[in-house]
Amino acid sequence: MPVCRKFSGIVSETAQFFIFGTTISTIVTMPNVDLKRLAKELNLAVSTVSRALRDSYEISAETKQRVFELARKLNYVPNPYASSLRKQKSKTIAVVVPEIANNFFALAINGIESIAQEKGYHVLIYLTHEQFSREESIARHLQSGRVDGALVSLSGETSSFDHLNDLKQTGVPIVFFDRVCETLNSGRVTTNDFESGMVAAEHLVERGCRKIAYLSISNNLSIASKRMDGYLKALEKAGVPHDPKLVLQCSANDNEANYKAIVNLLKKKNRPDGIFASVEKLAILSYQACEELKLKIPEDIKILGFSNLETAAWLNPSLTTITQPAFEIGKEAAALLFKTLEKKSMNFSDEKIMLNSKLIVRKSTGN
Amino acid sequence: MPVCRKFSGIVSETAQFFIFGTTISTIVTMPNVDLKRLAKELNLAVSTVSRALRDSYEISAETKQRVFELARKLNYVPNPYASSLRKQKSKTIAVVVPEIANNFFALAINGIESIAQEKGYHVLIYLTHEQFSREESIARHLQSGRVDGALVSLSGETSSFDHLNDLKQTGVPIVFFDRVCETLNSGRVTTNDFESGMVAAEHLVERGCRKIAYLSISNNLSIASKRMDGYLKALEKAGVPHDPKLVLQCSANDNEANYKAIVNLLKKKNRPDGIFASVEKLAILSYQACEELKLKIPEDIKILGFSNLETAAWLNPSLTTITQPAFEIGKEAAALLFKTLEKKSMNFSDEKIMLNSKLIVRKSTGN
Repeated sequence: MPVCRKFSGIVSETAQFFIFGTTISTIVTMPNVDLKRLAKELNLAVSTVSRALRDSYEISAETKQRVFELARKLNYVPNPYASSLRKQKSKTIAVVVPEIANNFFALAINGIESIAQEKGYHVLIYLTHEQFSREESIARHLQSGRVDGALVSLSGETSSFDHLNDLKQTGVPIVFFDRVCETLNSGRVTTNDFESGMVAAEHLVERGCRKIAYLSISNNLSIASKRMDGYLKALEKAGVPHDPKLVLQCSANDNEANYKAIVNLLKKKNRPDGIFASVEKLAILSYQACEELKLKIPEDIKILGFSNLETAAWLNPSLTTITQPAFEIGKEAAALLFKTLEKKSMNFSDEKIMLNSKLIVRKSTGN
Repeated sequence: MPVCRKFSGIVSETAQFFIFGTTISTIVTMPNVDLKRLAKELNLAVSTVSRALRDSYEISAETKQRVFELARKLNYVPNPYASSLRKQKSKTIAVVVPEIANNFFALAINGIESIAQEKGYHVLIYLTHEQFSREESIARHLQSGRVDGALVSLSGETSSFDHLNDLKQTGVPIVFFDRVCETLNSGRVTTNDFESGMVAAEHLVERGCRKIAYLSISNNLSIASKRMDGYLKALEKAGVPHDPKLVLQCSANDNEANYKAIVNLLKKKNRPDGIFASVEKLAILSYQACEELKLKIPEDIKILGFSNLETAAWLNPSLTTITQPAFEIGKEAAALLFKTLEKKSMNFSDEKIMLNSKLIVRKSTGN
């Protein structure tokens, strides 16, 4: 490491701790000096400081010298967890998902674990319960370096991404799956949500529906808006006029409110003759609402939902689904993350992978 | 701390690190000296050494002096993660469960998170996929001190408990829930499995069944054997002779083999007229097997299962279940763990809590 040698004269014992060897020699705690403070004092980005301290080839010799000098002066000590991460590898990855009482995530996690197991990695699962505040708190928690990388599927409330960008800047690569962030430069694994939304609505139109409700899960999520775009495209193609009142913006985490909203929608005089549920739980709530209102499926109303429900075929009536390759999505996302982890550089992959979902026709949409 | 003062004269700076203050003053790494080595040289149990170093009142002054002296001589340094655990708290707990594609665990985890959230703790979820080797590996991983405590539901393969005892000995309290270890002295939260097994079998007898199959999940698990004891008791009380051929020992993780075994059981000349599935997935496989064999539920065969399936009421026919208070179990287990964590001593609670499940009669067991 010629660049490092160049600075060895000015690097203190403390600095040696994080720049050179893997052995902890001396730790003097100075808890208030962190990357942010260094960055502020030097008028640099946190990521630049972080890379300079890691002797990244992306950072100029001049900048590195400025960073090292200030680090020495302020007795900067890296977080021991974070240091363990970069030098000693935690051999652990995090999976951050909104919920697990959803077969899509349960299967995707199994796919992730199948790859992690091969690689000898542990998988930590974190639940956001669809809440932005929890997602933020988890991202902060992960900055302490307890994992080598993270696989993230966004909460329904998430519309800003600083917390994830910060995590990335501390050297933790992120790969998004299913509910992805389109503005952050990261690996992503999705399904063909637009096409699937179109296929779903076309199927309902084919089965005679003209007033198709779309139950959306969250305005923020790319999956919900893409599925809806597909739905709108299908209506347009079929010459079915779009009625905005048939689009129900459901809550990501308030099932009771969602249930009431669906019941209200179905009570209306001009009620829908078809329901397209953008996520599994909204399809189940629709069955429940139909039971309460004594609406027969598929005679009075047809129902189709995105779902990986294991019992879809044994429901009464069996549920027509758009089924995502959930296990495969998990596998591909994990493989993409390990590709980044196995690279030496901090140039994280921003590869995009798209897999295809499929329509499985069952009795809930009639014959 | 009078006992500590007594030894202050012979305690080195290194020893001071772990016995007194909360500030790390000096760390000299000597990776080969660990608790096990100290224990071996002193001919003491690892747990005794660990407690002596933590200045536990359970350990005599003489023993403490021997331990401190050797620790100083060998420059023993506690694992920094483990040390972080005891002094600086990771504010994180682990949940170790066999699977999540099971509504019981999904709900129990939600219950756990509701308490952890209140306490400002993060929850890490680890999956064993019903494999003993994974459970062992996770327990080792947790020994590094990344969590303050663990909530564990055993894998179907687990029949020895050294890995969990070792974890406990490193200072990580464990509370078991549902699938508990009966030989380890730890907090436990269970349901009334024996009574529920009895209620389930009595219900099938009442509905006219005389050849009731019991689908067991694993010989090792207390839940499976208690539910079976209840089933046997109910048969005895009703004067229905017990046929051991009707007890199917299913695999904890091979659903394909389980499916074949159920189909074979139902193909027999003297096939059962009732099925009591000890876990959710075996009830679903039974529906599938009945469909393949064109057996009508409940006319040809009645089915009842332990289950927290959200869609149980919408199955065709709706499934009669023994439903566990899964969310409550998670809450109680987490509360018990925090009770231990909030205590100053290492005397872990071994409190036992039992909650009641309930029978929910639906159409799969007829009228």
